[in-house]
Amino acid sequence: MKKIMNRSEDIIEEMIRGMAFANPQLSCFPEERVVARRQKTEKVGLVSGGGSGHEPAHAGFVGKGMLDAAVAGNVFASPSPAQMLKGITEANTGKGVLFILKNYTGDLMNYAMAKSMAEGNGVVVDSVVVKDDVAVPDSTYSAGRRGIAGTVLVHKIAGAMAERGDCLEEVKRVAEKAISRVRTMGMSMSACILPGLNKPGFVVDENEIEIGMGIHGEPGIEKTAAMTSKELSGTLLGYLLRDYDFVGKKVALMINGMGGTTLMEMYVLAADLENRLKENNITASKVLVGNYMTSLEMLGCSISLMDLDDELSELLNAPCDTPGLKILP
Amino acid sequence: MKKIMNRSEDIIEEMIRGMAFANPQLSCFPEERVVARRQKTEKVGLVSGGGSGHEPAHAGFVGKGMLDAAVAGNVFASPSPAQMLKGITEANTGKGVLFILKNYTGDLMNYAMAKSMAEGNGVVVDSVVVKDDVAVPDSTYSAGRRGIAGTVLVHKIAGAMAERGDCLEEVKRVAEKAISRVRTMGMSMSACILPGLNKPGFVVDENEIEIGMGIHGEPGIEKTAAMTSKELSGTLLGYLLRDYDFVGKKVALMINGMGGTTLMEMYVLAADLENRLKENNITASKVLVGNYMTSLEMLGCSISLMDLDDELSELLNAPCDTPGLKILP
Repeated sequence: MKKIMNRSEDIIEEMIRGMAFANPQLSCFPEERVVARRQKTEKVGLVSGGGSGHEPAHAGFVGKGMLDAAVAGNVFASPSPAQMLKGITEANTGKGVLFILKNYTGDLMNYAMAKSMAEGNGVVVDSVVVKDDVAVPDSTYSAGRRGIAGTVLVHKIAGAMAERGDCLEEVKRVAEKAISRVRTMGMSMSACILPGLNKPGFVVDENEIEIGMGIHGEPGIEKTAAMTSKELSGTLLGYLLRDYDFVGKKVALMINGMGGTTLMEMYVLAADLENRLKENNITASKVLVGNYMTSLEMLGCSISLMDLDDELSELLNAPCDTPGLKILP
Repeated sequence: MKKIMNRSEDIIEEMIRGMAFANPQLSCFPEERVVARRQKTEKVGLVSGGGSGHEPAHAGFVGKGMLDAAVAGNVFASPSPAQMLKGITEANTGKGVLFILKNYTGDLMNYAMAKSMAEGNGVVVDSVVVKDDVAVPDSTYSAGRRGIAGTVLVHKIAGAMAERGDCLEEVKRVAEKAISRVRTMGMSMSACILPGLNKPGFVVDENEIEIGMGIHGEPGIEKTAAMTSKELSGTLLGYLLRDYDFVGKKVALMINGMGGTTLMEMYVLAADLENRLKENNITASKVLVGNYMTSLEMLGCSISLMDLDDELSELLNAPCDTPGLKILP
């Protein structure tokens, strides 16, 4: 597959150099593959990270009102404990650091080591684990549900809380509330190809789609014939509603592209979801449509719903200024 | 090809319904395929439009600090005079309307009719024509150079000027200055497939890329073997520098994805361009990286440079709040 790249072994470092060039407000550490906010204020530090290939996640969400640092592993691979330590160190201003993890075994193991190294340096570190994917109870890379696009909403909410000066315990409380109220379901129409390889590690047949496929191409729960957007909106929403009672609630809706899917298609799906939500007496008070947590150039999307109370709603709508998500005051 | 859609004949209308759902600050007219700002202030109205399939262009740039209305044709087809008239009417608050056209014959012809209809209604309408693509002197759909991604920078600059209350003549003057100073060169690595069709109207071979391909898949100037990002940065920049003397200048750089290209790749190219610009003593004071004017799910990108003077620089950096581009105060 043709990609715009040089040597595949340099791609993450070069990507971070490019981010630094395009975003002078960020401190970029290409060797450690860490991106952090340049302007530091004394507050709880928020860190996220994981494998690369999901851009703009996670470095794209570093900035005012969201993350303080992000750590980039190789494509679809966990960052090392040493990288995570660098991220924690960059985010730390003495008020403690919260690491927002997605539920993948490698991420959790490496975080545990990074945490103990950071604590050895006198940094207070705590974590939350996002597991929003309702598709499968366990998966190739996780014990328990996977963390996927809903994580971005958790970044946003915890970020707003930290920005306004709340303490680590409070930021953790609100992050855990957000996690308990968000659910995501995805679908894929094609495989993606890792940089440097010539073919995908899996195949989605010509007239087939896969419901519940993970963001690294891990198996989903249902291979089915390609369907219309109307049908798809019902299928994806159905999985969410069977898992969480969103009926009658005020929610945030995120329609997340997997990378190669056009905005045109995401908006068509949005129009169908508007009708489906109405049928279920669900009010979408905030709708995000775009590429937030991708799988390279995969065709497909996920939908996330978060059950909003007043606190979450206010934090979700607070201003933020990051490359991947901006909300004006 | 699998796409998230219902009937292909409904796709534009449904896309606009989805935009309305996701962006309650916009007035959306699905039948006329027009998107406009809901909150109107008395100012010069800015309208753009053209074929669909380039999202977020153009409706994604409607909002505070950019466009007042956008008109969406069918995929890769000009909007009708009646649609354009609706866009002009929605943008008009009595201070005159400037239509920012891209240089395609169909767009220009239909605009001429829309203008005379609007003038019949007593609306003052003027226009500018963007022709930033240095690839070819004439093309399949244009007499003279095509208008492509650089148009978004023109929207931004003219939008800031209109927002601060300048008159139609002034907004037109600055838009024409921006047009005279912007150049774009693109490349494609794959074809794209129109909704409802099963195969592309053209082919890019397995190990080939096309330099200068248009945003509707129109022929470029050079089919060549796939190359590294370093080589590509030199090739694309070389075309721009042979056309305009950016050496020693302060510029805005836009790296625009064609739809299916990952942010990772665009950032790698950004890192290589940073070096190339330095070698040419060019200072990028503003860098935009992302999908701004796409060609459905095409793999590829374009780079645009705009020679900035103080006036253009200030206008480019002014706040804006649109679905496709946000700049915080």
